[in-house]
Amino acid sequence: MIYLDNSATTSPYPEVLESFRKVSETYYGNPSSIHQFGGEAEKLLKTSKKQAADLLKVSEQELFFTSGGTESNNTAIKGIALKHQNRGRHIITSQVEHPSVLEACAALESLGFRVTYLSVNHEGKIDLDELKRTIDGETILISIMHVNNELGTIQPIKEIADLAAKYPKLFFHVDHVQGLGKVPLDLSHPGIDLCSMSSHKIHGLKGTGALYIQKGTTLFPLLHGGGQESSQRPGTENLAGIVAMVKAMRLTMEKQRHSYQHLEKLSAIIRTALHQDHRIVINSPEDGAPHILNFSVPNFKPEVVIHALGKENIFISTKSACSSKHSDESAVLAACGWGEDRSHFGLRISLSYQNTEEEVREFCKTFIHVLDQLNNVMG
Amino acid sequence: MIYLDNSATTSPYPEVLESFRKVSETYYGNPSSIHQFGGEAEKLLKTSKKQAADLLKVSEQELFFTSGGTESNNTAIKGIALKHQNRGRHIITSQVEHPSVLEACAALESLGFRVTYLSVNHEGKIDLDELKRTIDGETILISIMHVNNELGTIQPIKEIADLAAKYPKLFFHVDHVQGLGKVPLDLSHPGIDLCSMSSHKIHGLKGTGALYIQKGTTLFPLLHGGGQESSQRPGTENLAGIVAMVKAMRLTMEKQRHSYQHLEKLSAIIRTALHQDHRIVINSPEDGAPHILNFSVPNFKPEVVIHALGKENIFISTKSACSSKHSDESAVLAACGWGEDRSHFGLRISLSYQNTEEEVREFCKTFIHVLDQLNNVMG
Repeated sequence: MIYLDNSATTSPYPEVLESFRKVSETYYGNPSSIHQFGGEAEKLLKTSKKQAADLLKVSEQELFFTSGGTESNNTAIKGIALKHQNRGRHIITSQVEHPSVLEACAALESLGFRVTYLSVNHEGKIDLDELKRTIDGETILISIMHVNNELGTIQPIKEIADLAAKYPKLFFHVDHVQGLGKVPLDLSHPGIDLCSMSSHKIHGLKGTGALYIQKGTTLFPLLHGGGQESSQRPGTENLAGIVAMVKAMRLTMEKQRHSYQHLEKLSAIIRTALHQDHRIVINSPEDGAPHILNFSVPNFKPEVVIHALGKENIFISTKSACSSKHSDESAVLAACGWGEDRSHFGLRISLSYQNTEEEVREFCKTFIHVLDQLNNVMG
Repeated sequence: MIYLDNSATTSPYPEVLESFRKVSETYYGNPSSIHQFGGEAEKLLKTSKKQAADLLKVSEQELFFTSGGTESNNTAIKGIALKHQNRGRHIITSQVEHPSVLEACAALESLGFRVTYLSVNHEGKIDLDELKRTIDGETILISIMHVNNELGTIQPIKEIADLAAKYPKLFFHVDHVQGLGKVPLDLSHPGIDLCSMSSHKIHGLKGTGALYIQKGTTLFPLLHGGGQESSQRPGTENLAGIVAMVKAMRLTMEKQRHSYQHLEKLSAIIRTALHQDHRIVINSPEDGAPHILNFSVPNFKPEVVIHALGKENIFISTKSACSSKHSDESAVLAACGWGEDRSHFGLRISLSYQNTEEEVREFCKTFIHVLDQLNNVMG
């Protein structure tokens, strides 16, 4: 199998699964239980959180474990909105965010909040001047993703954070789900107040994520309960999932340091091969993240291409998995200003450090072959 | 180790962990991906949900997987409140609910909702007449637990459901976290609109739960996103955790059918032994669930007793793990009308089908021995 859909989800590292098993078997006590067996689980929880905080260069008090990226994004956005609505009810995001951000914002609109969806250029980038003009006295939150999940576009997070830092009333949330372990992000920047992460995008397990909440930032928690995670995220901690996530973070961030060029190389191989075929147009910007490559093959129905590749045991995707079943059009490509010839025919390859040169060369060969075959069928 | 804190959490069944590993390794595709590898994951998700629905005798369309009991309770309570607030803003619950219910209700009070906390008798049972009198034209939700997590008290769910069914404007939510796999509950009763369950209380894994939502019942979802779980609970499905939960449900419900008397026998052994010691008073009602036994040893500080037992590798608890770190007093025992001599000195044993007669006899012997020793120290 050649798996090139790593932005949808990844295969868990064997070491991660082994940690999960060990913790589930040996440290299954409830960290909130006051007996020694619960105490051991609590100690392991604290150690894991410390490790994760060190990896992210934040304080342990600023890191909260959640059930995944969707919960992290919803907690950040709704949590700020509900807590600080007395200051103002205006939120700024972009047209190319993940559904969990866009839908959370839409839900807030239904509760009376005002949301501005920033436009993006052909490459999927927001315009800092437009952002600046959009901030008004009512703005309480900016939510912008770091790396776009469909295009790989890297948003100017540092510049947005610099700007946000000038407005003390305003919080800035970064959806870092696709960036973690791939594109560096400096969470110590005082302008970044919240940051979402997910485990299963970095070879961890599904059902675990994290939310960075800068010291001093207060939220209305989505969940209320037994006081776990300083009451920001109550519920019995998924300790095995947390330990597994921290291990996946450590392993992936090590690879980020040593194998980033490997991803760039794979990306360049695919880009070069696709460039040579006149039927294909590449949508991802040249300076995007190296693990995501989006392109369109006008008039070739994406599902048909994907199924033909699937028969060859090669898996790529159309757009984001979270919006893949709703319509043919990629809302992201449409927001970039592309017409239907591109936006209805988008395909996405997303790489992991585990992919090899051999795999991507095999993909390129098979892909062109599949297009030729489909051409014949359709011709 | 003699583990008698199964209402805090349980050890995962080996078969459950093995299923989790297998699914994580083999079916790690994203069920929302449109390629065949995602399709296989989606098929497994549907099969698992069908199995769970069959076990619970509900329809697949009525069952939603969550990250656990806390999320299920919060989704049900806040979801009904936010969605149906135009009909009225009054909620009825009891004084002895789990913190995730009580705190969710308190959060709604801060948003302007009115909450009635029903009183309970010495045995922790609510009064149906009081409930009846409390319902008014503004009441939109009743949330009552099935089996009390500290006492084992079984609430008259059928009678409450009969009553609720008479008020078409009113939803009834049952917190079934401690009852699942122990005390039968008929979810097909038309008066039960919502029901929360948790996996790690039935030898499944932490980070997974379920919420039954009766057909026709609509909620404001806590999480918004990619449309998974019919948009009631979006986010990439934790497929391995779901398969593991369904397996844990199947195994535990089989044991419920064949080994219920085993639990009753263990409970009777402990009850008889504790009765013989004049220092001990039993708080759990005679007709409660057989797996939870609460008692007080006035003037013996619970933490001290628990730590002394822990040194002998025997683990019991004070009250619920989710409130164990906040104060000495059990709010549940206080609500039952017990004075400080009981409410500050409560201890809880919670059994699993895995516990043996030998274990509980060993516990009884050691427990009396520990009290004798502490008596000497204090005397």
